[in-house]
Amino acid sequence: MKKFLKTDEWNIIEEGFHADNLRASESIFSLGNGRFGQRGNFEETYTSDSMQGSYIAGISFLDRTRVGWWKNGYPHFFSRIPNAPDWSSIYLRLIDEELNLAQWDVEDFSRRLDMKEGVAYRDFEVTSPKGNTLKIHVEHINSMAHQNLCLIKYSVTSVNYEGKISLVPYINGDVKHEASNFNEKMWNILRAETTNEYAYLRAQTKREDSQVCCAMTYQLFKNSKEVTGSPIKIEKEKLVGFSAGADVKPGERVTLIKYAAIISSLYCDRPNLVDQAVSESKTAKAKGWDTLLKAHREVWQKIWDEGDVIIDGDPEAQQGIRFNIFQINQSYQGDDPRLNIGPKGFTGEKYGGNTQWNTELCCVPYFLLASSKEMAKNLLLYRYNQLPKAIENAAKLGFKNGAALYPMVTFNGEECHNEWEITFEEIHRNNIIVLALMNYVIMTGNTNFLAQYGLEIMIAISRFWSQRVSYSQQKHKYVILGVTGPDEYENNVNNNWYTNYSCIQTLKATICQLEQIAHQFPDEYTNIRRKTNFQSAEIVHWQEIIDNMYLPENKELGIIVQDDGYLDKELKTVDHIPAEERPVNQHWSWDRILRSCYIKQSDVLLGMYLYSSDFDDETVRHNFRFYEPRTLHESSLSPFVHSILASRIGDIDKAYDLFIHATRLDLDDYNNELAQGLHVTSMAGSWLAIVHGFAGMQIIDDMLCFNPIIPKHWNRYIFKLNFRGCNLQIEVGKNEIKISMIEGKELNILICKVVYNLSRGKDLIIKK
Amino acid sequence: MKKFLKTDEWNIIEEGFHADNLRASESIFSLGNGRFGQRGNFEETYTSDSMQGSYIAGISFLDRTRVGWWKNGYPHFFSRIPNAPDWSSIYLRLIDEELNLAQWDVEDFSRRLDMKEGVAYRDFEVTSPKGNTLKIHVEHINSMAHQNLCLIKYSVTSVNYEGKISLVPYINGDVKHEASNFNEKMWNILRAETTNEYAYLRAQTKREDSQVCCAMTYQLFKNSKEVTGSPIKIEKEKLVGFSAGADVKPGERVTLIKYAAIISSLYCDRPNLVDQAVSESKTAKAKGWDTLLKAHREVWQKIWDEGDVIIDGDPEAQQGIRFNIFQINQSYQGDDPRLNIGPKGFTGEKYGGNTQWNTELCCVPYFLLASSKEMAKNLLLYRYNQLPKAIENAAKLGFKNGAALYPMVTFNGEECHNEWEITFEEIHRNNIIVLALMNYVIMTGNTNFLAQYGLEIMIAISRFWSQRVSYSQQKHKYVILGVTGPDEYENNVNNNWYTNYSCIQTLKATICQLEQIAHQFPDEYTNIRRKTNFQSAEIVHWQEIIDNMYLPENKELGIIVQDDGYLDKELKTVDHIPAEERPVNQHWSWDRILRSCYIKQSDVLLGMYLYSSDFDDETVRHNFRFYEPRTLHESSLSPFVHSILASRIGDIDKAYDLFIHATRLDLDDYNNELAQGLHVTSMAGSWLAIVHGFAGMQIIDDMLCFNPIIPKHWNRYIFKLNFRGCNLQIEVGKNEIKISMIEGKELNILICKVVYNLSRGKDLIIKK
Repeated sequence: MKKFLKTDEWNIIEEGFHADNLRASESIFSLGNGRFGQRGNFEETYTSDSMQGSYIAGISFLDRTRVGWWKNGYPHFFSRIPNAPDWSSIYLRLIDEELNLAQWDVEDFSRRLDMKEGVAYRDFEVTSPKGNTLKIHVEHINSMAHQNLCLIKYSVTSVNYEGKISLVPYINGDVKHEASNFNEKMWNILRAETTNEYAYLRAQTKREDSQVCCAMTYQLFKNSKEVTGSPIKIEKEKLVGFSAGADVKPGERVTLIKYAAIISSLYCDRPNLVDQAVSESKTAKAKGWDTLLKAHREVWQKIWDEGDVIIDGDPEAQQGIRFNIFQINQSYQGDDPRLNIGPKGFTGEKYGGNTQWNTELCCVPYFLLASSKEMAKNLLLYRYNQLPKAIENAAKLGFKNGAALYPMVTFNGEECHNEWEITFEEIHRNNIIVLALMNYVIMTGNTNFLAQYGLEIMIAISRFWSQRVSYSQQKHKYVILGVTGPDEYENNVNNNWYTNYSCIQTLKATICQLEQIAHQFPDEYTNIRRKTNFQSAEIVHWQEIIDNMYLPENKELGIIVQDDGYLDKELKTVDHIPAEERPVNQHWSWDRILRSCYIKQSDVLLGMYLYSSDFDDETVRHNFRFYEPRTLHESSLSPFVHSILASRIGDIDKAYDLFIHATRLDLDDYNNELAQGLHVTSMAGSWLAIVHGFAGMQIIDDMLCFNPIIPKHWNRYIFKLNFRGCNLQIEVGKNEIKISMIEGKELNILICKVVYNLSRGKDLIIKK
Repeated sequence: MKKFLKTDEWNIIEEGFHADNLRASESIFSLGNGRFGQRGNFEETYTSDSMQGSYIAGISFLDRTRVGWWKNGYPHFFSRIPNAPDWSSIYLRLIDEELNLAQWDVEDFSRRLDMKEGVAYRDFEVTSPKGNTLKIHVEHINSMAHQNLCLIKYSVTSVNYEGKISLVPYINGDVKHEASNFNEKMWNILRAETTNEYAYLRAQTKREDSQVCCAMTYQLFKNSKEVTGSPIKIEKEKLVGFSAGADVKPGERVTLIKYAAIISSLYCDRPNLVDQAVSESKTAKAKGWDTLLKAHREVWQKIWDEGDVIIDGDPEAQQGIRFNIFQINQSYQGDDPRLNIGPKGFTGEKYGGNTQWNTELCCVPYFLLASSKEMAKNLLLYRYNQLPKAIENAAKLGFKNGAALYPMVTFNGEECHNEWEITFEEIHRNNIIVLALMNYVIMTGNTNFLAQYGLEIMIAISRFWSQRVSYSQQKHKYVILGVTGPDEYENNVNNNWYTNYSCIQTLKATICQLEQIAHQFPDEYTNIRRKTNFQSAEIVHWQEIIDNMYLPENKELGIIVQDDGYLDKELKTVDHIPAEERPVNQHWSWDRILRSCYIKQSDVLLGMYLYSSDFDDETVRHNFRFYEPRTLHESSLSPFVHSILASRIGDIDKAYDLFIHATRLDLDDYNNELAQGLHVTSMAGSWLAIVHGFAGMQIIDDMLCFNPIIPKHWNRYIFKLNFRGCNLQIEVGKNEIKISMIEGKELNILICKVVYNLSRGKDLIIKK
């Protein structure tokens, strides 16, 4: 853990220039707008260690995956979001010097990310080796209102310098790819041109024909007055831009506004890419900074109006939850079912920007409840559209009859991960998709979606399980051998409880929904049966598996057992590990991690969170007391789940600690990996920890329930929630709970085991 | 399985030209001499599919091993033997045509490998697109007498062609590397020069400074008369050679003899490389073909005199065992402890030419018994010299106090394999080294070696185990969690019986030898204690592990259990797998292989072979009946072990089938992978299957024992054996056993449970 940011409820503030922590800082100050994004790189030249990264949604590069010893069924390519041409740089030149924070003296450096308005600010004073002192102020926006625009205002005030200040806005296609094998370049530059008015660069990913065009124009001001006239044009093979400047005296200021438009072939026919990008950048200039900033602010205002969470009495928690909400909304706008959310969003290259089960575990439940828009639905449609590929993935592994195995890591639906213990064995991922579909039905009340799309997925996944289980003559039970559970610190285990249990729940849900849909949507049902060639006999086999699945438990200890063999380990608790060996994945060899009892994220507890109504509080408490002390929380998916369960069993201190861990995971760099980017998808988990955890939201017998608690030092917390067309605001104070209906008519809800009728205009106030 | 070679007792013969099987044929006709070797590539240009490969002992290339998801402790480089500059090519040109079997018509093509003399022959008639017909005869030798020389005689007889025939012997440094990542080149060419007399090419492996120099000269003959005069010199950046030729009429013949010398920096100081290579090639030419051939034949004669095995009545078996003996002796000469034997010898690039545990499992026992020279000792010294690296390897994984983990795959002692389930978990490999040391003591009677070298290894390995076991409160036993046994079709299992059992034997042997050495070599003992900082308390802990190690068994089935969880699998036998799905590793996904009950090579049975005197026949029989039918034998290490056990339990038909499988594995391409090269190290296993299997050789109570059986259709088999300074010849016929002492004085031996006294000059003849 490493605290380096100031605490502020609406801002992320870093003070002082820390070159040794630059990559972490770049991750924190990342900006995005759902279409593209970039790390908080300096606009000007910087020659010391840094991780330059700009990413465009939906654009992938097929990287090679060759490893030493190949296995049948391994993917031939690893899809990754390539570092895109850099559209946000601006050099600053004096007569014979160039600004470079790695070489110039820096004073009063500060960064501020204004989360309310979505603007990143940077201020500092620099002195060149020749003694020229300047003050710099930068504002950086990725427009949420005009999703193709990146806008930068770069102001330079001379303190003691007299002479010309040149500002050089440019677009550079010759970028470095952090994760590239053998420093391979990922782009072909198709065209690069600079005119008096604009410059653009059109590039294509190698091996595929994904294309992007970045175009830019600019305005230059001396003090407050616009300077017009022809700039010096820069036009190289892979770099285009302008050099524009003005002569200054001490006290005078030069400001450049860069208007960059970024368009990809996902949203524009290839032949029109250049025209559209150029036109959007010119239009942006015509509108001007103030107008564009206003539109951008308004979008953020709407997001906060709908989605802000207020935590009164805990500025650190307040800052953390807002940072998380800010980042999720920067990463995904939910308006395009072709897009998903990479674990790092637009903040880094790790995991290749690909889709993982994080989406269904964290983001779908978040958007389902937090957004009135169809964001969750689009994430589910994404999986539906990739169903044929999931069937292909399963077929590659020998499964038949339309069985589907959704990939662990994917861009276009094909598996692109090449470790057998993950790719072939971490198969529980199939079940979270079914659970997400079920939650969609529960939270929206809309079963139509299942009839149209979801049921096909469920049949295909159930078919996978019916072929993947095997029968143990020794146990007289169905078993699932050779899997990796969500606790990736055990690999290739037998009878991982979570996998076996969620398999049962998947089969049950499919059988149940087949009946429902047959009844409610007979035409769609007939259609699905025909399309999937579904046979009723399949249900018989599924039911047999449900009735005879082996679920490991230990009666003596009174716990569910994570998997066969777990209890043969040396059962120590995490506090036995010296602090300098944490996180263990950065210090221990893999075999040591695997044979230790330490858990990355607890499988058993995850199951108790996801299928919460199946377990009584006492069972949860007993298993929590056993597993949580052995859990390292080295997966970003872990702390929020455990916080929710701690709340459930009334352990408010533990729940709070884990909530803070989940909420400030990146702000305080808990796992010493912030440099690689932010844990964007799991940020949604901290919101779930408030709603399902502190507020105790569950659905019991089809009714919305709350059972709120509040951390000791909080005065109150407020959040909004969407449920079956209603929008509610829930305020939990120390002594009372207040629930208001903002949208919708009326709703019965259960609060602390009492049923209340809620209607618009009549706030429900319950004393605790 | 694919039969494509003629059966012959002393020759390997292929008839007809089969372009679609060329890679397999190239593997079979590989030649080597312990210092270098090459696949049976055509000398002339060939533009269709082929795998060009020339390899030089002890020269490695550090390849990158980057994989997607890195684990702590993974190696940063994979060492591999690089495809060396090609020294054996000779172009054949007519006036305006060039011989190319991919384009010319080929008739009467045949290859013959004369194993007795170590010469590869190739004969064929070709007709060019323009109708010119030639007869070609090639002889190829890698000299066993002059280990730096490769000699090729290339004869061309015109059938209907009139004009000039040019022969172009050359050395080419611009070679392709089959296994290269991203087609990376592995050599820097330092110098390439052609004079009137000789040509040479000096090259250096990239990243390391291993150097080789190949030099060549030649003789040209028209009919039988030498043609002298200046050739046309060829000198390119990466290719040197000559063009020499003569005008012919139909019936006339042109012959070129190429004298190539190959010297590496392992045997020559870098500055002298060129001089030595040039000088050796010139000396070779001075000596001439006939003299060199004679010396080469004499070496082979000695090898066969000492090591031939005669199988009377089974030409296929006879051919197979001679092929195997031939290949092992081509691959390793046993005179340099810096060298080891790659699984493919000099016949392919798979496994990178690195050392694996195959050496101790197959080659050390073979050389110990089959050779009177110190070949086995040098292989053990190789491991002793790499002990510091083995300690380093263990330290990388968190082990302390001088614990050693020998690498699974290595060139210089560092682990260079990067799959965690192998690298970190297939740790049983440590124990075969200890067993090889014990066998060395038993077979040679020489304990001095242990006092000088072996005991240090044993202490270091025992320390590894004492840290690697853990105590299960549930089982009240020591357990070994998270390992991969020799059956690599299960990964990351708990309590692999073979690993646990061999761990016990290792600890026992170390304790025992510590006592022995303390008694017999007190000075060396004191020295070792000081050097290793050995504490007597360590023995106490080792003994506790020995006394309390968990060994899985199933009383109901009456078997030892391969590992925890094995009996939960669907227990089918191999005959349930459709033939078209064999070998399963080429057809099934890895997860399916892992969760199936099918065994690559049986762990339990391997243990019963290696520690044979610990198990009675009935126990072996019972376990054999259970495990062998579930064993796929997809490891080349498998069939011979199972053949030996089948002999032991008297199942002679099974023993014979498995012996033939082991013996003709490559000749008949059982596993459809001959194209990649030969299974050189496991070839030694077929010899062991005769000696330990059919002849039933064991050491019981320190006495040499035989318990011979003979396959039904064999008339007799004869082999020689070295034991404690004695050299014996054993002849097993249908009705009698004859044992002669060739070297040595006298020896008590046990034959079919009766003790006999054997002395030189008095053959022992026992009627069965």
